Amino acid sequence: MTENLSILVWNEGVHEANNEPATMKEMYPEGIHGAIAEGLRVHLPEAYISTATLADPEHGLTEEALEATDVLLWWGHKAHAEVSDEVVDRVQRHVLGGMGLLVLHSGHFARIFTRLLGTTCSLKWRNEGERELVWTVKPSHPIAQGVPSPLVIPQQEMYGELFDIPDPDDLIFISSFEGGEVFRSGVTFTRGKGRIFYFSPGDQDYPVYHQAEIRQVLANAVRWAAQPEISRGQPAVSNHARGWYMQ
Amino acid sequence: MTENLSILVWNEGVHEANNEPATMKEMYPEGIHGAIAEGLRVHLPEAYISTATLADPEHGLTEEALEATDVLLWWGHKAHAEVSDEVVDRVQRHVLGGMGLLVLHSGHFARIFTRLLGTTCSLKWRNEGERELVWTVKPSHPIAQGVPSPLVIPQQEMYGELFDIPDPDDLIFISSFEGGEVFRSGVTFTRGKGRIFYFSPGDQDYPVYHQAEIRQVLANAVRWAAQPEISRGQPAVSNHARGWYMQ
Amino acid sequence: MTENLSILVWNEGVHEANNEPATMKEMYPEGIHGAIAEGLRVHLPEAYISTATLADPEHGLTEEALEATDVLLWWGHKAHAEVSDEVVDRVQRHVLGGMGLLVLHSGHFARIFTRLLGTTCSLKWRNEGERELVWTVKPSHPIAQGVPSPLVIPQQEMYGELFDIPDPDDLIFISSFEGGEVFRSGVTFTRGKGRIFYFSPGDQDYPVYHQAEIRQVLANAVRWAAQPEISRGQPAVSNHARGWYMQ
Amino acid sequence: MTENLSILVWNEGVHEANNEPATMKEMYPEGIHGAIAEGLRVHLPEAYISTATLADPEHGLTEEALEATDVLLWWGHKAHAEVSDEVVDRVQRHVLGGMGLLVLHSGHFARIFTRLLGTTCSLKWRNEGERELVWTVKPSHPIAQGVPSPLVIPQQEMYGELFDIPDPDDLIFISSFEGGEVFRSGVTFTRGKGRIFYFSPGDQDYPVYHQAEIRQVLANAVRWAAQPEISRGQPAVSNHARGWYMQ
Repeated sequence: MTENLSILVWNEGVHEANNEPATMKEMYPEGIHGAIAEGLRVHLPEAYISTATLADPEHGLTEEALEATDVLLWWGHKAHAEVSDEVVDRVQRHVLGGMGLLVLHSGHFARIFTRLLGTTCSLKWRNEGERELVWTVKPSHPIAQGVPSPLVIPQQEMYGELFDIPDPDDLIFISSFEGGEVFRSGVTFTRGKGRIFYFSPGDQDYPVYHQAEIRQVLANAVRWAAQPEISRGQPAVSNHARGWYMQ
Repeated sequence: MTENLSILVWNEGVHEANNEPATMKEMYPEGIHGAIAEGLRVHLPEAYISTATLADPEHGLTEEALEATDVLLWWGHKAHAEVSDEVVDRVQRHVLGGMGLLVLHSGHFARIFTRLLGTTCSLKWRNEGERELVWTVKPSHPIAQGVPSPLVIPQQEMYGELFDIPDPDDLIFISSFEGGEVFRSGVTFTRGKGRIFYFSPGDQDYPVYHQAEIRQVLANAVRWAAQPEISRGQPAVSNHARGWYMQ
Repeated sequence: MTENLSILVWNEGVHEANNEPATMKEMYPEGIHGAIAEGLRVHLPEAYISTATLADPEHGLTEEALEATDVLLWWGHKAHAEVSDEVVDRVQRHVLGGMGLLVLHSGHFARIFTRLLGTTCSLKWRNEGERELVWTVKPSHPIAQGVPSPLVIPQQEMYGELFDIPDPDDLIFISSFEGGEVFRSGVTFTRGKGRIFYFSPGDQDYPVYHQAEIRQVLANAVRWAAQPEISRGQPAVSNHARGWYMQ
Repeated sequence: MTENLSILVWNEGVHEANNEPATMKEMYPEGIHGAIAEGLRVHLPEAYISTATLADPEHGLTEEALEATDVLLWWGHKAHAEVSDEVVDRVQRHVLGGMGLLVLHSGHFARIFTRLLGTTCSLKWRNEGERELVWTVKPSHPIAQGVPSPLVIPQQEMYGELFDIPDPDDLIFISSFEGGEVFRSGVTFTRGKGRIFYFSPGDQDYPVYHQAEIRQVLANAVRWAAQPEISRGQPAVSNHARGWYMQ
């Protein structure tokens, strides 16, 4: 089922361009997007996996690129405001039309995420390298398959409630941090025909995307979000004569 | 609990200004907003109920007006595009901060509704005066209290699935029409701290807002959506030291 | 993914044994279970598909049979009370442990269904051969893939709201009938690690299970409900020392 | 709205009868039920609040008692198995008919709770007096009104995920414990016409029900679960002629 999937990993690429933090080049020599793509290749060897960044023409998110994409992954932090209106509109249209979308970590403030959810997506945070425990609360969900509970992340930025999102379709993971905060760290949404997954682990200061269990979650989520057989096209208003369905 | 509620009924007022359809003046001599307000006054005699329209300065939706409003009702059809960006932003901010919002009928395409939901909110439609049956599917919900199932509306515009909305928090009513279509006609959402109810009956061609059962639904919904004791203010991002909650 | 699936189609078999209605032998020469199994074989040619009935020893639902089953389909009507406590307990345990369960039509009153849902599962009904229209309201769900909206069933028993079930995880299909009633006809639930789908079309008086679109729905649902890789075993209480997850 | 509410606080009363733990008599001189009732009286001074225990005839849960009850609170731990089939059936019938039910702490294993939910309701636990932080994740819910986030409980038994419950209607509170576990500690369900709230704080070893914020939660929940105007009677199957609703 997954051999022909087309997956596009998007990263704003600003931390990489500035080598900020100073550990970036060593921790993520191919960029955060590179590490994510590498992890997906392990689990989805027959998929076509590419990357794009903010600096690419049209941020690498042209109509053609999105048409060819089954699942888009989104990592951003410093430069949400630099993503153009046109690209946000276009990505939204493709999600509503059936493209999968995985929003990662600080992407909670990405324009495409707040656009699709309608809320501030704000949260509490603290960056002190606390241990994060990711607990599975919906073990029957495809995204939880093969993921230990808890999934232990040695060091992460703390994200805490209140996470200002609409009630998710499915709440799969809840995280706790050493400081006692909790966070709905793995949640799904449907918008239009598209499936969306938000997953909070993955700060630029820690090598989270090299961790095997995190890669398992992302691969599961890509498989879950992909709908290669759906006809892309967002729902539209239409006028119908009585009994149109009998013809 | 309801004596001090402040309720604002908003209507674009374009059908009224144009007397279109020609039955408008007779059917709704005080406008659609006037009829809605009148119905609410029957059920909520001690509430403060006012109206506003698109033609008012800032559409009657100034910062001061919204600050003073517990629940805003929204009816629009012809002039969604004329609602200013500034007002849409402002209403969204107040909903996220805890103001209740009731979106009615063709308000499914109101900018504030698509903004809060993130989807197209498109649907199927046909205006042939078909009988609509509104069936209760969540009888324990406060909005369903005292409402017959089915609630029979002699003539209405048909709205049919697919209604492109996110999964609602609660699905309270499902309608069917003579032509066989169905519609999720009464649904709730939470966005930020605000409670939202969409209710589809209420076309300008039919005297729906004079019907006693419809008025019951709207009064129930106003009571449900109002949170007079909540401190208005949308959720915001914040940085916290470890153990901040112990101080 | 589906080649090794084991699917068990269960039918009480009482209508067949009594040839009641008199059309039964002609309409379902292999029984309702036989027709369902035949349809699944078209879509899942590499799955292992078997059938069982109430008259079999332990109703054909022995511990060994259930252990070997990925998805169980359940059709019953006349003889719900004859299903033994022991078998209901056993099926529940396997569902909570991860076995998929599809409950069909009059199975809404099956003991295993009311046991898992906790409600009466009652509904309105009328058997006059009305046309049923099955509308998709969650097009992104795997069970809706390739299913027309509406799916037109020429003749069916009417099932109408209030359908006394808990809020489903996902509402995929809503049906309407010529008489104007509506019904949540395709709904999912999770209980323990198991995935459950209820689908209402399928009365013994009409050849519903020969219809191609119905077979598509059931095959989709089997694929969705199957979790061949999950370790069967219902969740259990456990006592844990502090920090147990670090070992 | 609350002056006429009838509230029944049920406790098995076994810890009290055995003065086990030895702190029981001092911590809860009127029993756990007595302390709960006392807290409710502070918030609902005009309600009629009574208590009952396992040792009462029919456990104090006669048909007459339940008919007169708007909301039943349930605390049990040691003696779940001693609650009679007849009483479990009766309480279920009343909940489905519209009686509110609050299930507290170790009541997660109460027969009435597993009956209504259909799952094992199992969980992880550890009793070492850890600090519990109760975080609000749905601030718009009536049960969260006026409750600080986090609500700090100095010492509590740890309850941890996986909590084997169906997806709740609303997830209001998530707790964390010093040992790092998380728990969905405040969740609502609807079954039939009844509203159910489960709230996990409240172990017999700690004076949790004397804490002001806990009393606020319980009073909020009682108000939310009460439906004094609903006609008690669980949904039932019924046969209807075409167009019955037009008569």
